Amino acid sequence: MTPASDLRGRVDKALQEFLQQAMPPVVSVAEELEPLVASIEAFLLDGGKRLRPAFCYWGHRAAGAADSEQIIRAAASLELLQACALMHDDVIDRSDTRRGAPSVHRRFAALHRAADWRGDPEAFGEAAAILLGDLALIWADTMLAGSGFSAVSLQRSLPVWDAMRVEVMCGQYLDVVEQARGGGSVERALRVARLKSAKYTIERPLHLGAALGDGGPELTSALSNYGLPLGEAFQLRDDLLGVFGDPEVTGKPAGDDLREGKRTALVALAFAAANTAQQQQLRARLGDPDLDADGVTVLREIIAVTGALAQVEALIAERLDAALGALATAPVAPMARDALTQLAMAVSHRAG
Amino acid sequence: MTPASDLRGRVDKALQEFLQQAMPPVVSVAEELEPLVASIEAFLLDGGKRLRPAFCYWGHRAAGAADSEQIIRAAASLELLQACALMHDDVIDRSDTRRGAPSVHRRFAALHRAADWRGDPEAFGEAAAILLGDLALIWADTMLAGSGFSAVSLQRSLPVWDAMRVEVMCGQYLDVVEQARGGGSVERALRVARLKSAKYTIERPLHLGAALGDGGPELTSALSNYGLPLGEAFQLRDDLLGVFGDPEVTGKPAGDDLREGKRTALVALAFAAANTAQQQQLRARLGDPDLDADGVTVLREIIAVTGALAQVEALIAERLDAALGALATAPVAPMARDALTQLAMAVSHRAG
Repeated sequence: MTPASDLRGRVDKALQEFLQQAMPPVVSVAEELEPLVASIEAFLLDGGKRLRPAFCYWGHRAAGAADSEQIIRAAASLELLQACALMHDDVIDRSDTRRGAPSVHRRFAALHRAADWRGDPEAFGEAAAILLGDLALIWADTMLAGSGFSAVSLQRSLPVWDAMRVEVMCGQYLDVVEQARGGGSVERALRVARLKSAKYTIERPLHLGAALGDGGPELTSALSNYGLPLGEAFQLRDDLLGVFGDPEVTGKPAGDDLREGKRTALVALAFAAANTAQQQQLRARLGDPDLDADGVTVLREIIAVTGALAQVEALIAERLDAALGALATAPVAPMARDALTQLAMAVSHRAG
Repeated sequence: MTPASDLRGRVDKALQEFLQQAMPPVVSVAEELEPLVASIEAFLLDGGKRLRPAFCYWGHRAAGAADSEQIIRAAASLELLQACALMHDDVIDRSDTRRGAPSVHRRFAALHRAADWRGDPEAFGEAAAILLGDLALIWADTMLAGSGFSAVSLQRSLPVWDAMRVEVMCGQYLDVVEQARGGGSVERALRVARLKSAKYTIERPLHLGAALGDGGPELTSALSNYGLPLGEAFQLRDDLLGVFGDPEVTGKPAGDDLREGKRTALVALAFAAANTAQQQQLRARLGDPDLDADGVTVLREIIAVTGALAQVEALIAERLDAALGALATAPVAPMARDALTQLAMAVSHRAG
């Protein structure tokens, strides 16, 4: 048995060991690169739920493969991919914070200011965050390739690895397009959720682990039947947390998604059920960067009284139910079934 | 014999074939992704010198390996890596043009304007260019992995592939730091040149081709002795073209590097040899975004009369000489020696 906290610890350790090997050759090129690699290390090791590694690990065990250090390293490489996605996402969204601390581009802007360098500190910060994200994307690859699996196993996992990386970038782009369009249907919001969360966060990590464990097509399809609805539940919970979440737990300011004007399924449902006065309020306040606590309260009330909140909770329950139903008949080892059940509950009911 | 133009044609064809396979699955996810993948295609197929593929190809032949479609595909994957570097570089430098046409982030800003979407068109364009660069970086990997080489050959080439990708990103970061610092020593400028050009453009592509052809350590080291000085010559030529190049050939406005304030070895040498009045001019005008044709002329004159221009030409000649000297005694097949000699001349004396 590998309880969740133990798995997190092993993933952290694998990341630390990888960085201890990968960082020195970079710093030896030029000492100016030290802040760059140090900030990847800080970013990676400051917590995070390690969800993707957990799904990858249990996809592997579901295929009947034994516990090993190889699968921990392969699973941990997903955190480097995620680091790239988050760093680039923060530049794109101009987010000032990440997990309650300044985002990478803000940190490098501060470094530029402290050194009293020329030019625009913000532009320097963005440049550093773009390149640092690239480095994380490259290292994800290096870490997976060096995980200790045979060349044959790695080659079997490549289609999944490639698809996952393409999907997350395309999901991000569709998300940006969706915000630019000012949102629209629940269906379009759910399509983005499917790419960004259902496939990238849950289904593909499961498939990656299964492929590395030589899982067959029957397992792959069972893992999809579990992972895709669960991934939607994950994203829908994210939507709720972005509006109603506790800043202490989420690490983001209260109502952050409202201030950003994120076009989520929750917001689309609120729009659809709102009366004219409520629609006017939504239009006027969503995406207002100066939205204060009172404004957040007004929007939260509309989302609650229109029934959008309850609808999203119902959608989450429905999807969790579908995921657990699929898991019940999936051809997986009992220990993996138990762990995947716990993960499904944690993902659907998390507070941050 | 594979003349340069023939090699370019084969690389173009390999890129086209790769994209024909890679694009449809992405577009099938959502039609909004069509402009994204279409702009990778346009970016890749609008020319370019295909230098990195040429060095990769001839590194392979130098190892005694036969001509093959595999090596063409592997070599062509370097263009996808380069597409990522250029797209991200253009965001970082806020460059409006690339190869005489609007840069990717400018194109997507225009798409945003044409669709009359919400928010800042420039921010949308940057988001698209960041994600598109990520996609190109991922596809580089996919194309190399699917080039047709065996898993064993690919694994042998991985350390080179990883090192090359890390080096280009680190070189970009050091370049950004160097601009922010306002430049300094010739030595620091050459260190950036070594990473960004000598290793990334020439040495690593040679090594990649050699590794895929099972070249031994003796060949690897001979290729370094040829590639590193040649790479510096390439970058020094680039410095000269950025100041004195013909816009018709370079695809960039005249004196573009002066307007950007690029801290190259050429500029560092001019500073070192300038008198007080000339130094004042350099300080006042370098990096002035509104620098006009007269301003460009003034700076060009200073760079010429201080002797910096002649010094850089001498440095190029010296490095070309070193590269050709190393090639003369390198353990490579005669046909490869001939091709690498021609490439060395082309790289050192190119006009754009």
